[in-house]
Amino acid sequence: MTIPLLNCDVGESFGAWKMGRDADVMAYIDCANIACGFHAGDPDVMRRTIGYAVASDVRIGAHPGYPDLVGFGRRSLAVSAEEAENLLLYQIGALDGVCRAEGTRVSYVKPHGALYNDMAANHELLRATMRAVKAYDPALPLLVMSTADIAPVRALAEEEGVTLWFEVFADRAYEPTGQLVSRREPGAVHHDEATIVAQAVTLAKGEALRARDGSVLHLLADTLCVHGDNESSVAAVRAIRQAFDAL
Amino acid sequence: MTIPLLNCDVGESFGAWKMGRDADVMAYIDCANIACGFHAGDPDVMRRTIGYAVASDVRIGAHPGYPDLVGFGRRSLAVSAEEAENLLLYQIGALDGVCRAEGTRVSYVKPHGALYNDMAANHELLRATMRAVKAYDPALPLLVMSTADIAPVRALAEEEGVTLWFEVFADRAYEPTGQLVSRREPGAVHHDEATIVAQAVTLAKGEALRARDGSVLHLLADTLCVHGDNESSVAAVRAIRQAFDAL
Amino acid sequence: MTIPLLNCDVGESFGAWKMGRDADVMAYIDCANIACGFHAGDPDVMRRTIGYAVASDVRIGAHPGYPDLVGFGRRSLAVSAEEAENLLLYQIGALDGVCRAEGTRVSYVKPHGALYNDMAANHELLRATMRAVKAYDPALPLLVMSTADIAPVRALAEEEGVTLWFEVFADRAYEPTGQLVSRREPGAVHHDEATIVAQAVTLAKGEALRARDGSVLHLLADTLCVHGDNESSVAAVRAIRQAFDAL
Amino acid sequence: MTIPLLNCDVGESFGAWKMGRDADVMAYIDCANIACGFHAGDPDVMRRTIGYAVASDVRIGAHPGYPDLVGFGRRSLAVSAEEAENLLLYQIGALDGVCRAEGTRVSYVKPHGALYNDMAANHELLRATMRAVKAYDPALPLLVMSTADIAPVRALAEEEGVTLWFEVFADRAYEPTGQLVSRREPGAVHHDEATIVAQAVTLAKGEALRARDGSVLHLLADTLCVHGDNESSVAAVRAIRQAFDAL
Repeated sequence: MTIPLLNCDVGESFGAWKMGRDADVMAYIDCANIACGFHAGDPDVMRRTIGYAVASDVRIGAHPGYPDLVGFGRRSLAVSAEEAENLLLYQIGALDGVCRAEGTRVSYVKPHGALYNDMAANHELLRATMRAVKAYDPALPLLVMSTADIAPVRALAEEEGVTLWFEVFADRAYEPTGQLVSRREPGAVHHDEATIVAQAVTLAKGEALRARDGSVLHLLADTLCVHGDNESSVAAVRAIRQAFDAL
Repeated sequence: MTIPLLNCDVGESFGAWKMGRDADVMAYIDCANIACGFHAGDPDVMRRTIGYAVASDVRIGAHPGYPDLVGFGRRSLAVSAEEAENLLLYQIGALDGVCRAEGTRVSYVKPHGALYNDMAANHELLRATMRAVKAYDPALPLLVMSTADIAPVRALAEEEGVTLWFEVFADRAYEPTGQLVSRREPGAVHHDEATIVAQAVTLAKGEALRARDGSVLHLLADTLCVHGDNESSVAAVRAIRQAFDAL
Repeated sequence: MTIPLLNCDVGESFGAWKMGRDADVMAYIDCANIACGFHAGDPDVMRRTIGYAVASDVRIGAHPGYPDLVGFGRRSLAVSAEEAENLLLYQIGALDGVCRAEGTRVSYVKPHGALYNDMAANHELLRATMRAVKAYDPALPLLVMSTADIAPVRALAEEEGVTLWFEVFADRAYEPTGQLVSRREPGAVHHDEATIVAQAVTLAKGEALRARDGSVLHLLADTLCVHGDNESSVAAVRAIRQAFDAL
Repeated sequence: MTIPLLNCDVGESFGAWKMGRDADVMAYIDCANIACGFHAGDPDVMRRTIGYAVASDVRIGAHPGYPDLVGFGRRSLAVSAEEAENLLLYQIGALDGVCRAEGTRVSYVKPHGALYNDMAANHELLRATMRAVKAYDPALPLLVMSTADIAPVRALAEEEGVTLWFEVFADRAYEPTGQLVSRREPGAVHHDEATIVAQAVTLAKGEALRARDGSVLHLLADTLCVHGDNESSVAAVRAIRQAFDAL
């Protein structure tokens, strides 16, 4: 059994605006996805967040997004594959630059928000993302959504020469295909800590989930996405960490 | 005699807006100062400009500026030393990230516009710049203005562990202190190609210039700033290159 | 016969970057679509462009776009209807604010680029645009694409209480539906001045065009879009104006 | 006795980031200074904040700032007088545009942060601000800092044809000149509610304050600046309002 790495979006403050419990959640996670200034974060926030991660011995991942600060990178933007490749290289490099001042480096890449979703739906965009990661450093894993059928994405990654980490969610209901149930649907998001921890443990053990139609769903779980937005989400992360430590 | 390296600001287009004769000027320069997206440039412009530099075997320098696109980085912004350090690390890293896709890397740093001027006037800001360069890569030279008295800046650089390249201008008149005559003064800028080439050659030979009051001015000239804005400035660069080749 | 008003996108410079022959084209147009700072333009460019329009007695239209400067507002951005309404109000107001310093006011609205196209394809977005124009000033006409079947858009406009100006193109080939032939297709754009002037005159006379399959296409032509990007497009505008004056 | 109007900075959220207790503080203030998108605020935040103000029958003021989102408009930016005039017109107009959708209009102007301070120190910038307000609508009052010697600013305003509202602070210590004691000095900011209310009442009664050297200071108090950042500052505003109601 390989326990999934806990990854969390952090560094999402911007200028005078604060967001998230970054310093608190660092104690329980393995991987800090740090915003790179296009959808959130700025050079000073990045520096501070990297400092927290270093202090807690947490790996640093670039969390690049669309250039849409006011929309927090959550709105699709019709970029070309070339534009996507270049804006990823820019953001990964920028974070890695700030990392050096704290004696560390970027060690993986997780695209953010609409970019993450768009690249799951559009293989031309996914290839562009892979090209960016490969060009930056072929040793960096790229996080992608785990689904019921990961073979096509794996084939692309082998072709492009990139390592993938498949990502799962403990607080979201799944469609039979392994897609997340849309947030507009009832029951899409689990709010109960016990349910969240149970789903995390099921995924960590490599056991099957039940999709929302009751069907059996097997998901490869290299890493599990957790949240540090507020007190209760940090508590859920701590509970998951404790449950994983007991496995 | 060490011939000064010819450095030129390039990559100053942005999105749909074109600026400069980047492809043309590359044939005559040694060092391409590429804008990093804060005052000019964007990831696509950076990628294209890096491609031109690689094709012409020109060294790539990061040309970071204040975050002021509409003002082209020419307006002073009252950033703290910490903010300056972090925005420099961000921009150097961003350019270096895009460089990797073209098989090259950043090899020196030249701050842009108001940031360049402000760090010459403010040693706290200059130290912050040095800390950023040192943290990014202690092997990268930092370009600073050459003046009649470079000892204090050299002492700072030794303290901070940074290599300096002193920069001179062939198309500008000098004050006795080695400051540039303000553009608001008559005679501040040389427009005549012969005058520009003559001043470049004088500097390259290590001979003294005449300051605007007629006094003798010795300037250390590791690198000479040239311009690729338009046809006549590109012609002047070519003439300087030919004159240097004949030395 | 009502001669269509000639409208032209102007004020598309930004900061240090110049675009278009704004001052030249003003002599031949009726309506200046001025960028409002989100996809192009800035307060100083807006002020200067308004000045040109006033000097030539040209009507000023707000030309609002998506907040995507680097993409020049040409990339679709998945904004909600509420977001669209508010970003339109913001931009119309901003331009109208700068207008006051030149003793004039905004007198119509033409959305730009991807926003113009998206609102033609998405009636929820079109309604939001109409609500913005109505709230700003119910007397301001809204420019929309003329097509073979304008009844649905007219019905919407009546419901929302907005006046429409239907816009046609002299330099573009049309589909039988009245959509523009995609720029990716051969023959989509007319480059020959005589062809452009002929199509403009046909539209002005209310005569039918031939769509690209040879079918007959009737288009309501309240206003004709012209271009001031370069010398030859300005020459085409002058030729259209002369042809219209001779009608 | 004319009770000073209570003015408060609101609408300082941005995109996904929340700031301030806007909805809570509206009950106690007369004037809402709404950020216009350059240092804080966005079209959606502006719309929502205008809605709160309308619901509480609070006057709406434009609160324009430098174009420095990451620095929250608190860092001086070396803009020219022309640039200042145009960015003010842009922002006032933008807010006024969004106001129309809520059936209201901008009724005064208060520059923000570094722009407010810079225009107090630089009469060329102050004149530019006055020109912008005058051009936008000569009926709009402009808020400026009250000091011991307001005659020169009044003379300028008369010359430019602008109405001024002199602004005072209840939570700040004053220099004998009527400048605020710098935040870097001990005792610059009053945190105790009773002290704040007492200073507010003194100012409202037109009585003299004691400057920090003990000298007597008379300040014209058309309006008093209050804060809605957090629970305790909202409580202080309520206490000031109650004290004013009892006068």
